[in-house]
Amino acid sequence: MIALSIAAGERRDRSTTPAVGASGVSDSAVNLREFSPVSDLEANLEPFSKLRWSVDGLIPAIIQDADGGDVLMMAWMDRAALVRTLETGLTHFYSRSRRSSWKKGETSGHVQRVESIRIDCDGDVLLVKARQTGGACHEGYRSCFFRELDPSGRLSVVAERVFVPETVYSAKDANSGE
Amino acid sequence: MIALSIAAGERRDRSTTPAVGASGVSDSAVNLREFSPVSDLEANLEPFSKLRWSVDGLIPAIIQDADGGDVLMMAWMDRAALVRTLETGLTHFYSRSRRSSWKKGETSGHVQRVESIRIDCDGDVLLVKARQTGGACHEGYRSCFFRELDPSGRLSVVAERVFVPETVYSAKDANSGE
Repeated sequence: MIALSIAAGERRDRSTTPAVGASGVSDSAVNLREFSPVSDLEANLEPFSKLRWSVDGLIPAIIQDADGGDVLMMAWMDRAALVRTLETGLTHFYSRSRRSSWKKGETSGHVQRVESIRIDCDGDVLLVKARQTGGACHEGYRSCFFRELDPSGRLSVVAERVFVPETVYSAKDANSGE
Repeated sequence: MIALSIAAGERRDRSTTPAVGASGVSDSAVNLREFSPVSDLEANLEPFSKLRWSVDGLIPAIIQDADGGDVLMMAWMDRAALVRTLETGLTHFYSRSRRSSWKKGETSGHVQRVESIRIDCDGDVLLVKARQTGGACHEGYRSCFFRELDPSGRLSVVAERVFVPETVYSAKDANSGE
């Protein structure tokens, strides 16, 4: 839908380094394995220097379903989570309660395979298109956005569960969304 | 795509108060005019009590294009901006620099007509589906997410401008996105 238009000076040889999320390439994992290892990513500061992290060193990441386009969730990444996401092709986030990065789907198996990562104009929000296994929401829904405000200002559930949380999470991690 | 499933106890009489974003209803403005006035919204605390605002009294709002599903932008709302959004059916946000709410499109005319508002499982993120006039991005793009990380970690512009910023914004507000 969005025309490919690479700015002058930023054009690269696509024949050797295919764009992540390039249309017509269905196996995103293959693409992402072509990402440089962490050390090179760290050395190549361009994307990181363009990002504006919060005072806590975090950046919000919107996760959009590559299948259908539904917005699945929003979570926060620290630098380590972003590097791990780039390195593995699977989303990682930062847990404020545990003060460390965690892999989405670690417990549930409901991982998110990254297809592309975009950055907004201000460099302070990430948009990650990903292929979601199972459901993104720890409450059992495909998307965390399963409630809608109706005209009176009340909330209604507008989705159906795709899994039963109790069968996926133990009581310990029922609220972690892992 | 998402099946309508209203939880028991939350079902309302849809014949008199059609759901915002109900499929088959194309004129969202009509729906939104049926939102209760601010005073009633303030009195009906359900949605507000379910929201978890930041320590600054803000909540992130993801704006998704109701036409096509592209994620257009993310911005922050304070309580006043959310109330104004519900009241008018047009998105309003909070400006940290000016410390006040502002209407998206005030300067540019590139308003966003709200079709539906969803809340995530934790109640700390809003997802607003809206019909965008012109472009959401103050840099002239339809979406603020017009740059993509390629496999080497470099950024590439992957969209084309839909308007020329200089013809829409004065120098004064070129960075405000209004």
